[in-house]
Amino acid sequence: MNRKLRMGMIGGGSDAFIGAIHRLAANMDGKIELVCGALSINKEIAISSGRSLFLAEDRIYTTYEEMLEKEAALPADKRMDFVTIVTPNFAHFAPAMMALEKGFHVVIEKPITLSLDEALALDKKVKETGLVLCLTHTYTGYPMVKEAKNLINKGTIGKVRKVYVEYRQGWLSKLSEREGNAGAAWRTDAKKSGKSGVMGDIGTHAFNLTEYITGLQVSELCANLNIVVENRALDDDGAVLLKFNNGASGVLMATQVAAGEENNLAIRIYGELGGLEWHQQEPNSLLLKWYDKPMETLRAGSGYLSDIAKHNCRTPGGHPEGYLEAFANLYKNFSLTLAARIDGTSVNKDVVEFPSVAEGIRGMAFIENVVRSNESSDKWVAYSI
Amino acid sequence: MNRKLRMGMIGGGSDAFIGAIHRLAANMDGKIELVCGALSINKEIAISSGRSLFLAEDRIYTTYEEMLEKEAALPADKRMDFVTIVTPNFAHFAPAMMALEKGFHVVIEKPITLSLDEALALDKKVKETGLVLCLTHTYTGYPMVKEAKNLINKGTIGKVRKVYVEYRQGWLSKLSEREGNAGAAWRTDAKKSGKSGVMGDIGTHAFNLTEYITGLQVSELCANLNIVVENRALDDDGAVLLKFNNGASGVLMATQVAAGEENNLAIRIYGELGGLEWHQQEPNSLLLKWYDKPMETLRAGSGYLSDIAKHNCRTPGGHPEGYLEAFANLYKNFSLTLAARIDGTSVNKDVVEFPSVAEGIRGMAFIENVVRSNESSDKWVAYSI
Amino acid sequence: MNRKLRMGMIGGGSDAFIGAIHRLAANMDGKIELVCGALSINKEIAISSGRSLFLAEDRIYTTYEEMLEKEAALPADKRMDFVTIVTPNFAHFAPAMMALEKGFHVVIEKPITLSLDEALALDKKVKETGLVLCLTHTYTGYPMVKEAKNLINKGTIGKVRKVYVEYRQGWLSKLSEREGNAGAAWRTDAKKSGKSGVMGDIGTHAFNLTEYITGLQVSELCANLNIVVENRALDDDGAVLLKFNNGASGVLMATQVAAGEENNLAIRIYGELGGLEWHQQEPNSLLLKWYDKPMETLRAGSGYLSDIAKHNCRTPGGHPEGYLEAFANLYKNFSLTLAARIDGTSVNKDVVEFPSVAEGIRGMAFIENVVRSNESSDKWVAYSI
Amino acid sequence: MNRKLRMGMIGGGSDAFIGAIHRLAANMDGKIELVCGALSINKEIAISSGRSLFLAEDRIYTTYEEMLEKEAALPADKRMDFVTIVTPNFAHFAPAMMALEKGFHVVIEKPITLSLDEALALDKKVKETGLVLCLTHTYTGYPMVKEAKNLINKGTIGKVRKVYVEYRQGWLSKLSEREGNAGAAWRTDAKKSGKSGVMGDIGTHAFNLTEYITGLQVSELCANLNIVVENRALDDDGAVLLKFNNGASGVLMATQVAAGEENNLAIRIYGELGGLEWHQQEPNSLLLKWYDKPMETLRAGSGYLSDIAKHNCRTPGGHPEGYLEAFANLYKNFSLTLAARIDGTSVNKDVVEFPSVAEGIRGMAFIENVVRSNESSDKWVAYSI
Repeated sequence: MNRKLRMGMIGGGSDAFIGAIHRLAANMDGKIELVCGALSINKEIAISSGRSLFLAEDRIYTTYEEMLEKEAALPADKRMDFVTIVTPNFAHFAPAMMALEKGFHVVIEKPITLSLDEALALDKKVKETGLVLCLTHTYTGYPMVKEAKNLINKGTIGKVRKVYVEYRQGWLSKLSEREGNAGAAWRTDAKKSGKSGVMGDIGTHAFNLTEYITGLQVSELCANLNIVVENRALDDDGAVLLKFNNGASGVLMATQVAAGEENNLAIRIYGELGGLEWHQQEPNSLLLKWYDKPMETLRAGSGYLSDIAKHNCRTPGGHPEGYLEAFANLYKNFSLTLAARIDGTSVNKDVVEFPSVAEGIRGMAFIENVVRSNESSDKWVAYSI
Repeated sequence: MNRKLRMGMIGGGSDAFIGAIHRLAANMDGKIELVCGALSINKEIAISSGRSLFLAEDRIYTTYEEMLEKEAALPADKRMDFVTIVTPNFAHFAPAMMALEKGFHVVIEKPITLSLDEALALDKKVKETGLVLCLTHTYTGYPMVKEAKNLINKGTIGKVRKVYVEYRQGWLSKLSEREGNAGAAWRTDAKKSGKSGVMGDIGTHAFNLTEYITGLQVSELCANLNIVVENRALDDDGAVLLKFNNGASGVLMATQVAAGEENNLAIRIYGELGGLEWHQQEPNSLLLKWYDKPMETLRAGSGYLSDIAKHNCRTPGGHPEGYLEAFANLYKNFSLTLAARIDGTSVNKDVVEFPSVAEGIRGMAFIENVVRSNESSDKWVAYSI
Repeated sequence: MNRKLRMGMIGGGSDAFIGAIHRLAANMDGKIELVCGALSINKEIAISSGRSLFLAEDRIYTTYEEMLEKEAALPADKRMDFVTIVTPNFAHFAPAMMALEKGFHVVIEKPITLSLDEALALDKKVKETGLVLCLTHTYTGYPMVKEAKNLINKGTIGKVRKVYVEYRQGWLSKLSEREGNAGAAWRTDAKKSGKSGVMGDIGTHAFNLTEYITGLQVSELCANLNIVVENRALDDDGAVLLKFNNGASGVLMATQVAAGEENNLAIRIYGELGGLEWHQQEPNSLLLKWYDKPMETLRAGSGYLSDIAKHNCRTPGGHPEGYLEAFANLYKNFSLTLAARIDGTSVNKDVVEFPSVAEGIRGMAFIENVVRSNESSDKWVAYSI
Repeated sequence: MNRKLRMGMIGGGSDAFIGAIHRLAANMDGKIELVCGALSINKEIAISSGRSLFLAEDRIYTTYEEMLEKEAALPADKRMDFVTIVTPNFAHFAPAMMALEKGFHVVIEKPITLSLDEALALDKKVKETGLVLCLTHTYTGYPMVKEAKNLINKGTIGKVRKVYVEYRQGWLSKLSEREGNAGAAWRTDAKKSGKSGVMGDIGTHAFNLTEYITGLQVSELCANLNIVVENRALDDDGAVLLKFNNGASGVLMATQVAAGEENNLAIRIYGELGGLEWHQQEPNSLLLKWYDKPMETLRAGSGYLSDIAKHNCRTPGGHPEGYLEAFANLYKNFSLTLAARIDGTSVNKDVVEFPSVAEGIRGMAFIENVVRSNESSDKWVAYSI
């Protein structure tokens, strides 16, 4: 590859949050350039945002349909290679489908779609087109998460027996959606966010992290969802008892009303021989506990890590990497994969990997199964797709 | 009070664990002396243990019945004031009932009895006799636990909305009961331990801690118990979804197969305004989190603490107090209460308090309700006594 | 500004470490593009490195002189705006002087030069040309470091009395310079690194951090330097007692032979009313300790922070930012300053600031005074420039 | 030994702090009983304190001379075995000398005496009498400190190269000695405290901890002492550069004006292969760092610890032990030693050990050498006794 990959963006104008994060992440490694955007459904914001990002005037679009049409019509050496979709959940599916139809690879925010049905339809389209889709489950981009997956995969802690995963935030402790917080507003509106608020926004991350690290799949669950803040329209808190396909059990906790918590995602996994513990807020350490030996603290950037963990580090130990680097790892691995396709070469998929439609389907099914369980008086509900 | 209180002990010989802990705790403040014991059902151990504790030969007993009979027959200025019962769970009830009948106050290990029925019978006897019973739920003896209770009681974090309590140990990760571990053996035998292994041994601590700090009561629950280690006779792991009588919800996790964990009891409580977090393994700090202000770390031994927290500290800040001091606080408050009764004075019960039969009944009912829920296919079971 | 700033780079080829870090940092915010480079003194590496960064063939240079000449000859709308110098210490001065003479702004790695004399000459040249120079003392780019400076400046902890600053690394615990570690080799060679190894490489960072946060200046010092690893040519360890111009005292510790340490830079500052503590390896927390109140933990990304701290955060609380983001803040503030100059506008220097020549001179004088003190049998040496 | 050891106490009345700590520590294991005391120079306090401790009326003394005389005249099966001296520093020497002359073993608070000369005289007396003296350098009683000593002794981290020891308190941040704080008053009065305030009170602890763990001796030093709080009569802050007898170097920091610190004693030791780190405020963990492997966290109460560490633990892992247990270990090992003497048996001195006069002499010489260095304009002063 002798050039940067060309990225377009749908959503992510100056009135949004996550789009800026995607750009920081995509910029970091110098392998991707933003060439066009339909950055807002508000035309003025779309234009001013595009200008502030130094986009060419003729590639600042005001609808995603226009952007996908016009970019598809550009010559191959100019048109964007892929599009990043960073709109609210309800506006993922249509642009993703159209982008694939027009021949563009896709990066898409989680949860992948508004419903499981949409996710299944998108999966079909991805398979038809053979294009590449990256679902930004950011937390699996952390090197120490990848190290954890590697350790479990090679049997370091023995067969997994118990998993605790928790994702605690406090930012919805008040009825912020009524006080002008746009992000709170759409996330607590089922039409825009999906069937569950807390599970769509953060529960799917916890679920994805669990299945990613352990290599297991949830087979049954027992869920409780709550609307804690009065007058809220959608759940803001939940807990789920889990059973896994290897016989292990677990607990998944997700809440957005834990006043005083920031973005406290943590996972603890116990096997026959020991345990692993990782905290997103101190992401460069992975605790490896042993039944009868001192606990070890594995650190990002260290020489003793696995190849996949090293591949996802940019700095030596003690130079903390964070959320943006984890996010950038998704773009890095996606762009390595794309570049290899363009060059007609290949990547080592054991090391160069990222979440895609399969993870999106599992996540959407998780949400739907949790909602079904919450509404049921039966204790256990089979996880079904 | 111009003398030490006189303590007798049932169980706690050199072949046991928790008895030694009780003695360390009872000794610490110099207000209690051990005067007699029926320290083991093994006669030789009972005698050698008594001698190693410098007991008078005529007050080393070989059965609790003998001890209670003979001590009751001693003159008032010589006989023991109270008896501490530190036998396995199944052997709590009979000596406690007899001790009360003979007029002795009682300290008793948790869980209070083998069954809820026994606990209710014991409660009746305590009320009849008017004697004092202390149930050693050690963890409520920590000053920062008392501070947490105080903060919630005075509304610092607003109405409680969410509670997470977890108690993770790893010592039963292997089938130790088959390898000569006596403590593991009786704890995994329902006849000696009760209906649930993990809930009787540590789940009741987590439950008691939760109700103590929050001042709430569990009203409904949904439980899952597991036998994780093959060929074990009783559950070694469990998780329970909780609903409280104020509408809050929670999760209680208790496991003894978290390989690599020591005695990791922790609680997080979130209210409308902020949250509290406490970890038994770093007991001198209490984290107070705020929705929109920096987290504060309250520390044992500090001048800004409440009266009840200060009353339960022995050293200034930075001189860490631990498990034995928490345990000693139970003995301290019990002995202050007893001394006041003997002197005909009174104590300030807002400050001088300890767990008793009421907490024991709640704990036994918790175990029984959890077992009932575990066996049920209904999601929610009402907590009933 | 309606375009990205154009950056050239001297040093930083594929055989180097810090150049890649600079590029990651410069890329992140999407305001800077790398347009040319003289990336190595090895011609082949210079060319291959330039290609791998997608530089135009005619802007891949093989000497810095060629680059500065040719870039200066390009039309204004094409030539680079500034040059980043990431060569070893001994090769900072000449390209920096030439760049300034050719009219280019400069970003330069620390320590600014090989000697104090060079730093003073560079200062003169910067003043003559009126160009902008940014010295990459990365650690002052962290938002919580800026918050600490702000808190002290507004008197939160009262007059500063005591400072402890420590920078512990372990990577030179063995004689790595003899085992093919190029970075170790030049850093332990006084001709390339300067008069002191440990103080040039990391001691200046600790010194800069101290003067930056406290707003104080070191006035006297008492230093001890050691060559700990046998057969090493330059010191790898040192400690310095400090006196400050307000009467406060301090201790600065820097070592590269603390086996097992990564990049452990930490500072503790105590004033009349309280103290501040910050650890580079957990950079998103700033501890604020009080004489008679609970410690507070201030967190990056929080709404309660000062304007300068917020300006240097990219993500909300709980999304950890790290070393690369701190580094990117230097580039961000430098590029905002440059853009304002180009646009004929101005920036708020209370918020948009970065280290420059003045800090470079203080650092070089620190090294020279430390070496002088180390060689002296007098206890105290006046800090002089 | 078929009885408890009998302890007398000089100082430690209800108006004092450390005496109560000694009693808690001595009580804990049930091997020592307090039989008499001269608890205050204030007669009323001496008497009321004795009564509150349930001492027999005829063994509540009002001067230490009276106590030592009268106890010496009691029959062997009644008189105290040893005396604990917990008076301010200036009042250690005379009672200790008289106690030894009367044939009593001695426990004595640190620093051992007011001056080095007194310490040397006491040493002579101890040797003459052959009696046992225990100096309560509490911090060496922690099991993880003993583990650290053991690890270094067996070469785990290789030859020691660098030591950082720091002891930071904040309680003297204000002029408390003028506000009725009796402890602050005598500690800042050279006649009662000795030549240095901060070094006598806490610097000797840091010094003792360093020599104890490393097995090294300080050979040269360079000290700076400060009176930070205006109008204070004695230093409250200091830092010392150290050289050790094996060529290693170090830094010792002691301050009582670090506002917001409690009792923050910490030590970091680096050798050729790795490092050790221990914090008194989290005493149950010992960090073992490796040059090229993950850090290990060794925990009190674990099965993998050395015999000496295990001997000094009372509870299994995860049941935190603290300051009082460390203190109790001094009494435990002292009483095991005394009991063995009385029984005519012996103890394993590799495991049953405690600080004595030799450590007291090294500590007093440390204080005097630091004061000499502080007053000197020479950089280095040889450590001499």
